Amino acid sequence: MNGKIALEEHFAINDTIEDSRVYARPEMWEGLRAKLLDFETERLDQMDEHGVEYAILSLNSPAVQAIFDVPRAIEVARKANDLLAEQIARHPKRFGGFAALPMQDPDAAARELERCVQQLGFHGFLVNGFCQVGSEDRVAYYDGDQYRDFWSVAAALKKPFYMHPRDPLASREPIYDGNPWLCGPTWAFAVETSIHALRLMGSGLFDRHPELQMVLGHLGEGIPFNVWRIDHILRKGRRGMAAEKEIGEYLRSNVHLTTSGNFRAPTLLSSMLEMGSDRIMFSVDYPFEKHADAASWFDTVHISENDRRKIGRDNAIKLFDLKL
Amino acid sequence: MNGKIALEEHFAINDTIEDSRVYARPEMWEGLRAKLLDFETERLDQMDEHGVEYAILSLNSPAVQAIFDVPRAIEVARKANDLLAEQIARHPKRFGGFAALPMQDPDAAARELERCVQQLGFHGFLVNGFCQVGSEDRVAYYDGDQYRDFWSVAAALKKPFYMHPRDPLASREPIYDGNPWLCGPTWAFAVETSIHALRLMGSGLFDRHPELQMVLGHLGEGIPFNVWRIDHILRKGRRGMAAEKEIGEYLRSNVHLTTSGNFRAPTLLSSMLEMGSDRIMFSVDYPFEKHADAASWFDTVHISENDRRKIGRDNAIKLFDLKL
Amino acid sequence: MNGKIALEEHFAINDTIEDSRVYARPEMWEGLRAKLLDFETERLDQMDEHGVEYAILSLNSPAVQAIFDVPRAIEVARKANDLLAEQIARHPKRFGGFAALPMQDPDAAARELERCVQQLGFHGFLVNGFCQVGSEDRVAYYDGDQYRDFWSVAAALKKPFYMHPRDPLASREPIYDGNPWLCGPTWAFAVETSIHALRLMGSGLFDRHPELQMVLGHLGEGIPFNVWRIDHILRKGRRGMAAEKEIGEYLRSNVHLTTSGNFRAPTLLSSMLEMGSDRIMFSVDYPFEKHADAASWFDTVHISENDRRKIGRDNAIKLFDLKL
Amino acid sequence: MNGKIALEEHFAINDTIEDSRVYARPEMWEGLRAKLLDFETERLDQMDEHGVEYAILSLNSPAVQAIFDVPRAIEVARKANDLLAEQIARHPKRFGGFAALPMQDPDAAARELERCVQQLGFHGFLVNGFCQVGSEDRVAYYDGDQYRDFWSVAAALKKPFYMHPRDPLASREPIYDGNPWLCGPTWAFAVETSIHALRLMGSGLFDRHPELQMVLGHLGEGIPFNVWRIDHILRKGRRGMAAEKEIGEYLRSNVHLTTSGNFRAPTLLSSMLEMGSDRIMFSVDYPFEKHADAASWFDTVHISENDRRKIGRDNAIKLFDLKL
Ligand SMILES: [Zn+2]
Ligand SMILES: [Zn+2]
Ligand SMILES: [Zn+2]
Ligand SMILES: [Zn+2]
Repeated sequence: MNGKIALEEHFAINDTIEDSRVYARPEMWEGLRAKLLDFETERLDQMDEHGVEYAILSLNSPAVQAIFDVPRAIEVARKANDLLAEQIARHPKRFGGFAALPMQDPDAAARELERCVQQLGFHGFLVNGFCQVGSEDRVAYYDGDQYRDFWSVAAALKKPFYMHPRDPLASREPIYDGNPWLCGPTWAFAVETSIHALRLMGSGLFDRHPELQMVLGHLGEGIPFNVWRIDHILRKGRRGMAAEKEIGEYLRSNVHLTTSGNFRAPTLLSSMLEMGSDRIMFSVDYPFEKHADAASWFDTVHISENDRRKIGRDNAIKLFDLKL
Repeated sequence: MNGKIALEEHFAINDTIEDSRVYARPEMWEGLRAKLLDFETERLDQMDEHGVEYAILSLNSPAVQAIFDVPRAIEVARKANDLLAEQIARHPKRFGGFAALPMQDPDAAARELERCVQQLGFHGFLVNGFCQVGSEDRVAYYDGDQYRDFWSVAAALKKPFYMHPRDPLASREPIYDGNPWLCGPTWAFAVETSIHALRLMGSGLFDRHPELQMVLGHLGEGIPFNVWRIDHILRKGRRGMAAEKEIGEYLRSNVHLTTSGNFRAPTLLSSMLEMGSDRIMFSVDYPFEKHADAASWFDTVHISENDRRKIGRDNAIKLFDLKL
Repeated sequence: MNGKIALEEHFAINDTIEDSRVYARPEMWEGLRAKLLDFETERLDQMDEHGVEYAILSLNSPAVQAIFDVPRAIEVARKANDLLAEQIARHPKRFGGFAALPMQDPDAAARELERCVQQLGFHGFLVNGFCQVGSEDRVAYYDGDQYRDFWSVAAALKKPFYMHPRDPLASREPIYDGNPWLCGPTWAFAVETSIHALRLMGSGLFDRHPELQMVLGHLGEGIPFNVWRIDHILRKGRRGMAAEKEIGEYLRSNVHLTTSGNFRAPTLLSSMLEMGSDRIMFSVDYPFEKHADAASWFDTVHISENDRRKIGRDNAIKLFDLKL
Repeated sequence: MNGKIALEEHFAINDTIEDSRVYARPEMWEGLRAKLLDFETERLDQMDEHGVEYAILSLNSPAVQAIFDVPRAIEVARKANDLLAEQIARHPKRFGGFAALPMQDPDAAARELERCVQQLGFHGFLVNGFCQVGSEDRVAYYDGDQYRDFWSVAAALKKPFYMHPRDPLASREPIYDGNPWLCGPTWAFAVETSIHALRLMGSGLFDRHPELQMVLGHLGEGIPFNVWRIDHILRKGRRGMAAEKEIGEYLRSNVHLTTSGNFRAPTLLSSMLEMGSDRIMFSVDYPFEKHADAASWFDTVHISENDRRKIGRDNAIKLFDLKL
């Protein structure tokens, strides 16, 4: 299918590039590094070759979220966003942007988001999970009270946000000790990101801002598969969940999924049966994943051609109000 | 459907009953307590009413796994197993047993398992996740080297084991801080149990014992939904995973799922498309779940009547070599 | 689900009521007869009880299509449409109308359709398959050249049409000889209607009128299940098919399905995977089918609540531009 | 997947080869003709290239069923079966046989079936729909009383039969007039074959012979998609259906499907949800279909690898008791 739109496509800047080294085997690192720093050569070639017309780009992970020195987090976010804006200006028909935000300082994050949306024309923001604040071991999740005003600003801008994975701190997840293969995209990404997403849903965020839209990659980080069970259990007792509705209602009203890195038909089918095809969108997760893998699967996976057009393109145009 | 067989059905003894209090709202606790301690009245009534002919019973969670005083763990396991054996003897056509094991002492656990299978006629064992050993905060997962001989004994007995959820220790999972609603069956159970199951699969356990069979409840604790992604990532680099094959191969050769507590068609469908209907079995999770919910769903869920008979009954007869 | 809209809901007038006798066992006929002639009592009660807010009504089958005396066909159609218009006027929030048309005379049919849409406010027309023209054995299908102008009129009115089943003439389908149980809705309806629908698609009708929309009941009369095979075969040679595109393209661009009389999840799933959920709509086929059967299935069938709302209501509002 | 087994694979002899000409465009006929007459060159090459280890071969369509001169039908059947037996003897690890039978003479057909099974080692028989008897226009379906003894013989041999499509006689299906593109595998094959299969199921054949097994190609000729509706309608009144059970019960107890010529995932999924994966088997429909199309689809279609092995190989080994 031509004209696809992809939403979880990453770049890096010099200040953040080293964060991605852990996700490549040593012999592959130089290649991955080059791809992350590149905008105009291999990235566009790959998009052309595999029918991706437009990509909304975002900084690598965890990047700004891991910079516990707050002023530096603010500075790096701004730098990354400015560089991204320049690249978008050179290829406005091919690239859009998600803002990187210094969530360590909710006020600064809100101001940077306003700047990115209102001045740079970005489509929202992408956040790599929790942030570290002030010291390596102090973390913040965005259901915290200190983010109330931030979310009001984000909602007022009427742009979606992407909740992207990061690895948990080793000090906080001893369950992976001795099993490094479970870290990263194998399993820990989905655990960490699903819990953060559920915390947001359970916090009442989407009661306060019913129009706010969250995007989850990897076909939902496992949530659609177990969402019935979540609500079934909560119906027996809310146990401190602040939100007014069921998790499934938020999932169907405030959440969109992308196919990034999860190119699998039964998983897509299960997600479609929980969410409907209006809330699923194509993505690659470039350069951690290959356009070839994503597109060869998506272009032939046995769904209706009508759904392929929606998932591959139309849903993103509608959600982000793209002018394509 | 009549003649169903259920596999994740719990009882408690006085020494373990308090472990379940946390899973009931205060006003529901007396009812749950009674149901856990009962064998012959409400339990059999419910089974009769909802077409469950035979149930393999197991101790509540975490029970023995949480008794860090090792001699006491050994004693409580033995007591629970003896009591269960008595009940089975009274209703051999209705009840079977999974052994509770003092995994804190792998040798003792192996001997107790032999006793349960060879003398008491149990169908295998059910373990509630990691065990605490010696002190509250010291935990052991069963991919550890100290369990090598235990697994050899278990495999030689040619009986399956059930990897059942328990909650993580709060000290080891700060991610749930402030969100108690995510603990237990809402979400933490699946996270904890899926990781333990993956650790076993990744450890080479099923390479050493290719006939050994593990049962997972709740339609697979989220693993089938993401198993393609796991193997896709591992194909790029094993990062210390010891096992020889892909996780999906173990899933399709060494794992069975039950429907306990996850009465949802799209999830069942996704699991069937990953595992095939030969490796899925009906279960309730009584008394934490109701027979009425499990059976009214399972008896009408839109799968082939041929699959209903297999999932509802025949697969369990085959796996456990039941004489029904 | 409340607020459902149903699209294949039938009434009869005295001139056509006897056509339905064959579809009821003798002891059931009086009940069916009364239901077909009723508008305001049992019909509205049933709709209320089962959450159907609005029904587009249509004459029973075959009715006008079987009146080979052309002037009488014209007269009966007009009479049925007038009576329907009166009932709609009494309950404009509950009933809409599909025109019955004297297809025996394409010109008269076109004029009656214009009258029904422009003056009576009908939502399109419903046709019970082929018509008999002039004599009992002379039949016409609507891919015939004589219908070219009729279709131009129909397309200009920008209203969908419903291709509804009728039984084939015994003289033309000896394959059912000795097997009356295969006639009617058991099997012959789907065979007859699918072929007529395919003839229309293959005739180039939707090339000439790309905006024209056809509705098929019973989840597509078997076409979605085999549409891939149809196009796969036609790719090897068109063998006289006049249309420019593939059948699957017409199915996805010019056809909508309803659930009338086919309350089955795997069939719905297969249709959704061929058509997408935007082109499927709830219907009952009252009074030949029961609201209780249709609604109890549809309200609980395991699709996304988002799809349930679309299929149950929103798709019909959009297709027929309903003011609800 | 290697080791696949295919069940609807055709050859022709000089006496029957012309029957297939209608199914090829003129410029393709020489190629198709050569493939039908070939056993050892292109056929085995294709099987090797696409991982088909073993094929049960059958005569082309309609062949013997269309020879209304009864003695000649008997003679041609015998000739075809003898030639097939010779080829099987040359490649016993690659080819098996389905008998062609002169159904025009039920006695002769029974005797020829006994000869084929008992002396030639065939796996059952394949019949191309109704036969013409005595004159071009006189047809017989096998639910007729004259076939009672034939079916007793067939059942006693404990071998399955394959109900294969043929085109209806033009004189008996005027509905296709002017639409030749609907004849053959596009649509008429499924209509004709589904009705014949339903006639058999409705006749009580499988009540008299509950072990008898019928194989249907093309994922069931449309029956699984509508089987719920068939039984739903029949529950309101049997209207002369002789059989004791529901059609769905026969489908799940006496029918197996193959994938021949219907390489489509949603259709496979729908059939699996009606029948279970134990009753579906891989097939190509060579040389009317290509091994490349069948295998490239089947080897990658997103079902469990466990189901792929069953559908691709193990189910056929079990059904036909193959020594592979
Ligand atoms: Zn990513
Ligand atoms: Zn349990
Ligand atoms: Zn109808
Ligand atoms: Zn064939």
